[in-house]
Amino acid sequence: MKLLRYGARGAEKPGMLDAKGQLRDLSAHIPDLAGAVLSDLSRLKEIDPESLPLVGGSPRIGACIGNVGKFLCIGLNYSDHAAEAGLRVPREPVLFAKYTSAICGPDDPILIPRGSEKTDWEVELGFVIGKPGKYIAEADALSHIAGYFVANDVSERNFQTERSGQWSKGKGCDNFGPIGPWLVTPDEVPDPNNLQMWLKVNDQLMQNGTTANMVFKVPFLVAYLSQFFTLHPGDVVITGTPPGVGMGMTPPRFLKAGDRVSLGIDGLGEQHQLCENDA
Amino acid sequence: MKLLRYGARGAEKPGMLDAKGQLRDLSAHIPDLAGAVLSDLSRLKEIDPESLPLVGGSPRIGACIGNVGKFLCIGLNYSDHAAEAGLRVPREPVLFAKYTSAICGPDDPILIPRGSEKTDWEVELGFVIGKPGKYIAEADALSHIAGYFVANDVSERNFQTERSGQWSKGKGCDNFGPIGPWLVTPDEVPDPNNLQMWLKVNDQLMQNGTTANMVFKVPFLVAYLSQFFTLHPGDVVITGTPPGVGMGMTPPRFLKAGDRVSLGIDGLGEQHQLCENDA
Repeated sequence: MKLLRYGARGAEKPGMLDAKGQLRDLSAHIPDLAGAVLSDLSRLKEIDPESLPLVGGSPRIGACIGNVGKFLCIGLNYSDHAAEAGLRVPREPVLFAKYTSAICGPDDPILIPRGSEKTDWEVELGFVIGKPGKYIAEADALSHIAGYFVANDVSERNFQTERSGQWSKGKGCDNFGPIGPWLVTPDEVPDPNNLQMWLKVNDQLMQNGTTANMVFKVPFLVAYLSQFFTLHPGDVVITGTPPGVGMGMTPPRFLKAGDRVSLGIDGLGEQHQLCENDA
Repeated sequence: MKLLRYGARGAEKPGMLDAKGQLRDLSAHIPDLAGAVLSDLSRLKEIDPESLPLVGGSPRIGACIGNVGKFLCIGLNYSDHAAEAGLRVPREPVLFAKYTSAICGPDDPILIPRGSEKTDWEVELGFVIGKPGKYIAEADALSHIAGYFVANDVSERNFQTERSGQWSKGKGCDNFGPIGPWLVTPDEVPDPNNLQMWLKVNDQLMQNGTTANMVFKVPFLVAYLSQFFTLHPGDVVITGTPPGVGMGMTPPRFLKAGDRVSLGIDGLGEQHQLCENDA
């Protein structure tokens, strides 16, 4: 299933795509794609999509998950990206946080913060926890995942690394966390570590990779993270980016107002963002 | 006013202390101490506490704020603590994140994670945002604060600094974020940067400081953080710790099951925690 959320920001309704790719309203069946609903998405398979109300027009697509708890981000998880960042592949996964207030829809604008000169892009595979757990065994890890999605880990490199310690300042800005368009259930993603991914800026291909090149694979990440804290339904994990980010180019290339960013992952859909200066 | 939340975890009700320090039930007036309610706490002053139902028994005290959005943490904000950590005072505030799933009541146990050998304590002044804002001027900053509270920034030093990059792993463990007991409104805190604070382990005084020694003061922190992202009602900030943490001692001293931790800040109440090994 391809599930999604649509409508005005903060008032999204749940929906699903039917066999023709048309948007259908799921709100008679679930209140939102959030929290405990994520623990039992399989029951939605019993619904005939044709029986759901067709949603007309072209509504805004929201973040594919509501009320996210932890926004867990893995850094330097592609060896060739680590090299372009001038950093070594870590012995253990690098974990950092994006603030949940950064989450937005897949086609919402990228807001370039006041004073920013180094706003950058990162296409990433994301997943969301459905079944809670702690100290999860790697062999059981995939059963804790409710679905997969595309994420752009938008990053301000000056705020991230040149403004005194820790990456949070450059990772958690408003609209720096577009997720979606769809939450794709695991039955449609037979191997999350064999997906092609790409990102373009103004039609120029910048990133072109595969999740097969992750240093720490999806099941390992679930097990690893659960050693530190309980994973709850609605916690999301984004898993690192392949090479081709702006800071790795010679000379570096960063986003400015008017730039258009597009990105996608096989089977998970695409995002399309216009860069704007924050008001 | 001294506001609080009481009852079973996840099902807390809002309350307030009356003039005798007795707990009164506020749930007929507000749904929770959370979100938009924090934007207008002053209207609660019109309520005669004696008119509210008295809460009998000794209920569990919950985290003093529900549904926290961002959990923003300032590091190395006391020059003498930076020295004991072997680090220089930063040019700008160091920001890091605790996950909101770490939040718990002030007297809930400290859960020592599996494999932890370096669980440590940090008494800190916290505050919560009431009025939203971005690019806030320092002169307006205090008007955005809905109240103040005591926090223990429980930290696992090995997870924090010896397990590959960023501090999140050692800061966001379950129950590593006790906040409360009370949310104290600003009318009772004339100067947040003139409060005595202390922390004891098994009745031994470990930290004994004052918020007057903060490098970056409360109004500056509000203005500074709002340069990076919108501050929303329910976002909390904890402001750094004075000297006396376990990792700064010779030899270092860390928490083990059975240890009792107490901490408090003048006018904001006390926390009392028993250390337990996580199951």
